[in-house]
Amino acid sequence: MPSTSSVTAPSYAVIPFTFTSSKSSPNFPTTKLFTKQNPNPLLQTKSTRSHRRVLVKATVSIEKETPEAERPETFLRGGDGDGGVSSVRVRFEKMIREAQDSVCNAIEAADGGGKFREDVWSRPGGGGGISRVLQDGDVWEKAGVNVSVVYGQMPPDAYRAAKGGASADQKPGPIPFFAAGISSVLHPKNPFAPTLHFNYRYFETDAPKDAPGAPRQWWFGGGTDLTPAYIFEEDVKHFHSIQKQTCDKFDPTFYPRFKKWCDDYFYIKHRDERRGLGGIFFDDLNDYDQEMLLSFATECANSVIPAYIPIIEKRKDLPFTERQKAWQQLRRGRYVEFNLVYDRGTTFGLKTGGRIESILVSLPLTSRWEYDHKPEVGSEEWKLLDACINPKEWI
Amino acid sequence: MPSTSSVTAPSYAVIPFTFTSSKSSPNFPTTKLFTKQNPNPLLQTKSTRSHRRVLVKATVSIEKETPEAERPETFLRGGDGDGGVSSVRVRFEKMIREAQDSVCNAIEAADGGGKFREDVWSRPGGGGGISRVLQDGDVWEKAGVNVSVVYGQMPPDAYRAAKGGASADQKPGPIPFFAAGISSVLHPKNPFAPTLHFNYRYFETDAPKDAPGAPRQWWFGGGTDLTPAYIFEEDVKHFHSIQKQTCDKFDPTFYPRFKKWCDDYFYIKHRDERRGLGGIFFDDLNDYDQEMLLSFATECANSVIPAYIPIIEKRKDLPFTERQKAWQQLRRGRYVEFNLVYDRGTTFGLKTGGRIESILVSLPLTSRWEYDHKPEVGSEEWKLLDACINPKEWI
Repeated sequence: MPSTSSVTAPSYAVIPFTFTSSKSSPNFPTTKLFTKQNPNPLLQTKSTRSHRRVLVKATVSIEKETPEAERPETFLRGGDGDGGVSSVRVRFEKMIREAQDSVCNAIEAADGGGKFREDVWSRPGGGGGISRVLQDGDVWEKAGVNVSVVYGQMPPDAYRAAKGGASADQKPGPIPFFAAGISSVLHPKNPFAPTLHFNYRYFETDAPKDAPGAPRQWWFGGGTDLTPAYIFEEDVKHFHSIQKQTCDKFDPTFYPRFKKWCDDYFYIKHRDERRGLGGIFFDDLNDYDQEMLLSFATECANSVIPAYIPIIEKRKDLPFTERQKAWQQLRRGRYVEFNLVYDRGTTFGLKTGGRIESILVSLPLTSRWEYDHKPEVGSEEWKLLDACINPKEWI
Repeated sequence: MPSTSSVTAPSYAVIPFTFTSSKSSPNFPTTKLFTKQNPNPLLQTKSTRSHRRVLVKATVSIEKETPEAERPETFLRGGDGDGGVSSVRVRFEKMIREAQDSVCNAIEAADGGGKFREDVWSRPGGGGGISRVLQDGDVWEKAGVNVSVVYGQMPPDAYRAAKGGASADQKPGPIPFFAAGISSVLHPKNPFAPTLHFNYRYFETDAPKDAPGAPRQWWFGGGTDLTPAYIFEEDVKHFHSIQKQTCDKFDPTFYPRFKKWCDDYFYIKHRDERRGLGGIFFDDLNDYDQEMLLSFATECANSVIPAYIPIIEKRKDLPFTERQKAWQQLRRGRYVEFNLVYDRGTTFGLKTGGRIESILVSLPLTSRWEYDHKPEVGSEEWKLLDACINPKEWI
């Protein structure tokens, strides 16, 4: 999901072009994958941009990560701090690392027993990340909160398509890009306590050295969404209200637009149902003031705790039956289906040789698939399923 | 996996071309999927043929299935019985339906408690299937055995690529194809009892009416593979020996070739490990006598019971610890990863609107994902993982 995807794939998650890994790269031995014996249906992926539709063949190569003993002050390369637009990189990294600390503190406090394990890693060419996972706690079966900074190379074709109208004979080299993000998935044990996912990311391209005057591109993306196994209407209203309040501080059109975007994105096509009850989701956002969008992303990240923790406090100790636990496990199975089959970040991360454990920490500790399970019409399970099939306006 | 895939996707599983669902079809509302808000990384898939590499855009449309109260004598259209090559259709359907009966009987007998539930379905334009699932039995947590017959339309480009050397101006219409297959995945409860998968399928195209003289194409595909959580060397040797004996009756090159093919196909690229300990796998097989290959597929299907049931009888009642059960569940998680991310049949079936419950019956009843789990070097769990990373010659 976009969540853990940002560890390896914010590049893709926000680059508004189709990436097809049709050329091999040091980190992506396509030759092995293109054999008839071992075809990989994920080798080609598709994405579109709101204002343009372009199809560009490209390879994104991500270096292998190396473990670090300590958290560095910053994952940014030297020089990224020097004023101008680049300082957004500095402020965004600061923001996501502070958000990681505050969310992890709030989760540990609410869990009471579990503690986060931390893995710090870096990449030789710059960038890196901090993965934190709390597993088998008192309240959460699995809680992952990751931040990452990625420096990569954006294919020239993609860049030309980005700025548009470049002559075909103009041949810039690969365009360096920068991406940073925080991503998190929180799976509680109690079937009445909902799963939460959030992910906020920022993307930039450098101005290409060999294409003078070509503009620097930047985008924001992210979202926060709620996935319960049972509906407590007051919980869902509370969650969506916080999302709306946060959006309304910036633009009254944000909540309705990003709420629908969320319902559309977390769609399990083969089931014709959503993963959960939504929230907000946006991507490739650059047609607003950059400072405003930085503040918006910051507010969104800061709204995670007030939107989620009160719900957990109310539900974490409710008694439940085996049948209710089994239903939660079935819904967790749907979560796995969405993440492995549809989520752009996950599927892209899996093929580009990202840090697998960080990408797949989004998967629940346990899940279940029953053949042809159909909740009894009118039951609480049926009500949840109905709301996943027919997204509702909660506020 | 090829297993349940044959319910909807033997067409893809054996058609040696790239299918990209780039045109919408009544059964595949791509428009909904191609929005930026809801990109689908699986919309494009890749496959290659041994002797040629072709890239062809095409749509395979599969009609929605309708439930049937009773098993029909045959799922074939009238006329398919009339002698010539078409009679292979008749004999292959008879073979897979007999194999379904004998395997289900053997599973019920070995399980002792569980009974198969049966769902019969058909498609308006011809074809259909019988899905049988035993869930939460005494020995198996989930056992699916499906047969299906599919009539579809093969895109002209794909057909031209198939017979090769056709002039671009030659424009035949879509080529009708026929596909039939049996597919099965058997997940036991006991962590010492291995999961088995097998799938055998036959594919044919009609001679195109508007391209006189164009040859009728046909292929066989399939395989049988074993996925234990723990290695009992005698079990794996027994399983592979039966595969080899079956292959050797037809061609001494079959076992070594199909054993490697199996190791290559069931490869979880993002983990650099195989799903299990392999067996045999082949696809697009048509460069042998058709009668010989029909007999070979029949022998393979008939060898499932002697290859598998004796292992189950030895292991189904062994005592086990919670830790051993958890390891089995982690390996089941890898099974889910392979099936949802890489398996051609599953991924294709999910996008073409096949019978979802039949496709996903291949998923285990329960599975588990622990963050960064690493078996202790030298442990029994480590030995299994090592054999999945470094495929061995078992006989």
